[in-house]
Amino acid sequence: MLTLASDFGTPYPAAMRGVILRRTDARLVDVAHDLPRGDIRAAAFWLRELLPYFPPAVHLVVVDPGVGTDRNALVVRAGNHALVGPDNGVLFPVARELAVDAPLEAFLVDDDHDDLRPERTGRSRGQKSTTFHGRDVFAPAAADVHETGVDSLETLPYLSLTDDWVDLELPEATVDGERAVGEVLVVDGFGNVITNVSGTYLEGREVVVANGECVPVGETFAAVEPSERLATVGSHGNVELDVNQGRGEAAFGLEAGDAVVLEFGDDGRCE
Amino acid sequence: MLTLASDFGTPYPAAMRGVILRRTDARLVDVAHDLPRGDIRAAAFWLRELLPYFPPAVHLVVVDPGVGTDRNALVVRAGNHALVGPDNGVLFPVARELAVDAPLEAFLVDDDHDDLRPERTGRSRGQKSTTFHGRDVFAPAAADVHETGVDSLETLPYLSLTDDWVDLELPEATVDGERAVGEVLVVDGFGNVITNVSGTYLEGREVVVANGECVPVGETFAAVEPSERLATVGSHGNVELDVNQGRGEAAFGLEAGDAVVLEFGDDGRCE
Amino acid sequence: MLTLASDFGTPYPAAMRGVILRRTDARLVDVAHDLPRGDIRAAAFWLRELLPYFPPAVHLVVVDPGVGTDRNALVVRAGNHALVGPDNGVLFPVARELAVDAPLEAFLVDDDHDDLRPERTGRSRGQKSTTFHGRDVFAPAAADVHETGVDSLETLPYLSLTDDWVDLELPEATVDGERAVGEVLVVDGFGNVITNVSGTYLEGREVVVANGECVPVGETFAAVEPSERLATVGSHGNVELDVNQGRGEAAFGLEAGDAVVLEFGDDGRCE
Repeated sequence: MLTLASDFGTPYPAAMRGVILRRTDARLVDVAHDLPRGDIRAAAFWLRELLPYFPPAVHLVVVDPGVGTDRNALVVRAGNHALVGPDNGVLFPVARELAVDAPLEAFLVDDDHDDLRPERTGRSRGQKSTTFHGRDVFAPAAADVHETGVDSLETLPYLSLTDDWVDLELPEATVDGERAVGEVLVVDGFGNVITNVSGTYLEGREVVVANGECVPVGETFAAVEPSERLATVGSHGNVELDVNQGRGEAAFGLEAGDAVVLEFGDDGRCE
Repeated sequence: MLTLASDFGTPYPAAMRGVILRRTDARLVDVAHDLPRGDIRAAAFWLRELLPYFPPAVHLVVVDPGVGTDRNALVVRAGNHALVGPDNGVLFPVARELAVDAPLEAFLVDDDHDDLRPERTGRSRGQKSTTFHGRDVFAPAAADVHETGVDSLETLPYLSLTDDWVDLELPEATVDGERAVGEVLVVDGFGNVITNVSGTYLEGREVVVANGECVPVGETFAAVEPSERLATVGSHGNVELDVNQGRGEAAFGLEAGDAVVLEFGDDGRCE
Repeated sequence: MLTLASDFGTPYPAAMRGVILRRTDARLVDVAHDLPRGDIRAAAFWLRELLPYFPPAVHLVVVDPGVGTDRNALVVRAGNHALVGPDNGVLFPVARELAVDAPLEAFLVDDDHDDLRPERTGRSRGQKSTTFHGRDVFAPAAADVHETGVDSLETLPYLSLTDDWVDLELPEATVDGERAVGEVLVVDGFGNVITNVSGTYLEGREVVVANGECVPVGETFAAVEPSERLATVGSHGNVELDVNQGRGEAAFGLEAGDAVVLEFGDDGRCE
C-alpha cells in the first residue's frame, strides 16, 4: 500500500500517480492533495493525526516549499512504515508516532541518480525539473521503496543512511495550574480552531475562558445553538474552539500560529 | 466493493480510509466528500441519483450534523447493497431505490461496542470521539459489513434488527393540469437548479413559465446562446433551470428549498 | 488500467465510476475532475503533460461543452493507449504524444447503440440523457474498450473506423532571433502562468523582458524573495511566469490565451 499526500491541488498529483504505476502495482490511497500550501507545520500535524490509522504502508509526502533548492530528499523507516519526502521536518512528527518503540532511521536520497528519473511515453527520460520533485524524485523513490520493502531500504542504490536531518517538533502547550498557554496548530476545513492544549483539561468543566472570553464547554457541536461558540475536545484529543454549524476561526478571530490562553478555574468570571 | 460519501471535505476522509484498510482488502471507491455540508436532504438526493449505478456494494455515508448527540447509527440492507450511516434519514431515499422489490431491513448499531473502536499505531484504541463518528463508528462498521457480507448482518455482535428509524422522503411536486408546484432540491456544482418536477412535462414544449417568467425549453445547453437561461431535462430526469455556460442559480435567484412554480400551457403569455 | 479526467467537479464523476465498475474490474485512476470547465485547449494541454507518464491504459476524457449537440463521440487508438471522449479536439494533442511513431486511428461511436446504455438498480436502462454523456456514452464505452483491449477495437459493435475528426493543435510560439511571440496556455492552481515558449531560451540568462518588463530568471521559486516575480522553466519544459509563494497570474495580469512576448537578448535594458 502506498499513500499520497501533497499540497498540489490539481492536476499535478496525476503525474505522480502515473510515475508510480509504471513501477509498482501497489494499491494507491490518496490522503489529501490540498494540505495547506507550503505549510510544513500544518502538514506535519495532519499526517501525525491521519497516517497512524493506516496499516503498514509507504507514505509519499510532498509539501515542499524549498523544491529546487539544496534541501535534501529523505526516506524514513519508522517501524513497519516508510515515509518519503523532503528534508524539511514534515516527516518527523508522524514518523515518531509510527515508529513506536523502534528507532527512526533516515536515508538520504541521491536525487541526481539516473534510476529515479521517471519514464514517459513519447520522450526519453530527461533531467529532473527544478519545480516538480514530486514527479521527478519522490514518486519514483516511493514506488521503489514499496517494491523493495521497508526492511531492505539499504539495497536501493540511491539511498544512504544518515543521522543528519531537519527535525520538527510540533509546539506543546504549557500548563500552570488552571492556565494553559498554547497556540493554534491548524484551522480545519470546517473552520474549527485546533489548539495544542490537551482536551483532558476540559473534563468536568462547563465553561472555559479563552483569550479572556467565556466560552461554554460542550461534548458535541449540538450542545449549543446553531451559530453559537463552544470549546470542545476534537477527534485528535485537543481543545478546539468551534461554532455549531458555523466557522470558529471567524468567530474567535484566530488563525494558525496565534496564541491561545485558556483558563479553566475561573468559572465565577463567567456568570 | 465499499463506497465512501461524506461532507467532510479534506483531509478527514483519509482517517476513514485508513481505518477501513486495516479491516478489509475491499476495493474503495469515493463517491464524493464534498456533499453539501450538513444538508441531509441534498445528500439523500445525490445518493439516490448516484449509488444505483454501482454494482452491489457497501456504501458508507457520513452526513451527520447530529454527531455526538443521541441519534442512532444504522446499517440498512437494501437488496444486495448495504448502507452504513447515521439515523437521520439520509440513507432511505436511496435504500428504497436499491431494494427494488425486497423489503428494507435496518439494524441498530451499538456504537459503544468495543469491536468498533479503530486500531492505530502508536496508541491503544481509545474511546470514540464525540465529533468524528465517521472514523470511530461508521468506517469500522462499514468494513465489518463488507467482510461479513450483506446476507449475514445478523452475525455482527453490535447489530440488532430494528423497525424504528428516522425516515426521509424527498418532496414531490404536485401537478394540477398545466401547473406544477414544486421546489428546488439542490443546486449542483455548475449552478444548475435541480427541481423535483418531472422532466416529462417539458416534452414537446418550446417555452415554460418558471416563477412567472418565460424561459425557453432546450434539449441541450447549446440550444440557447452562452449566458442565456433555459429549462431542460437534467440527467436525473427532472426539470432543471440552467444557464448555458453560466450559473442558473444566480440568474434565477433560486437556492435549495425555494418554491418553483412551472406553467406549461400558457405559451401565449411568452410571445 | 482506466484513467478518468473531466471538468465535472463533484459529485457527477461518481456516476461514471459506478457505470464503469458494473462492466469491468479494471483499476480506476483519477487524473482530475476539475480541469478548467469547458476549456478544451487547457484540458488538451494538461492531458498531454500528464497521461504520457502512465503505463498503457484506457483514458476516459470528458470535457464536453457541446454535450447533447450533434458533435460525435470518439475512441482513439494511440500506440498501446486508447482515449475515449468527445470529438472536439481534446484527445489529439495527447494522442499524438502517446502514439509515438504509430499511426493514430480514430473510431466513431454510434452513441445511440443499445449496448452503451448504463445499467442501474431499480429502473430499466433508459435513453441517453442530453446533458450527461459522461455517464451515458463515454463511461460505458471506456469500460468496454478496456475489456475488449486496445488491439481489438474493431470488434466493438458500435465503433467504426473514421478518418474524419475535429483536430486541435496547441499553439506554438514563434521565435525570431532574441524575441519569442507566444501566449499563455494555462494558469495552474498555484497561479503559475504557463506559456508555450520553450524553456530552452532561458538557459544561461539572468533576466528576460516579458511583455516589456524586466523579470529575473530563476531555476527555482526560491531564487527570488517571497512575493517577488520570476521567470522559470516549469516541469513541462516551458517558460512560466511565476511569483515565489504568490500568484503569477495576478502579478503579471495574464490569463489563458493572452499574448506573451519574451525578449532574451536585451539584458542591458534591465540594469
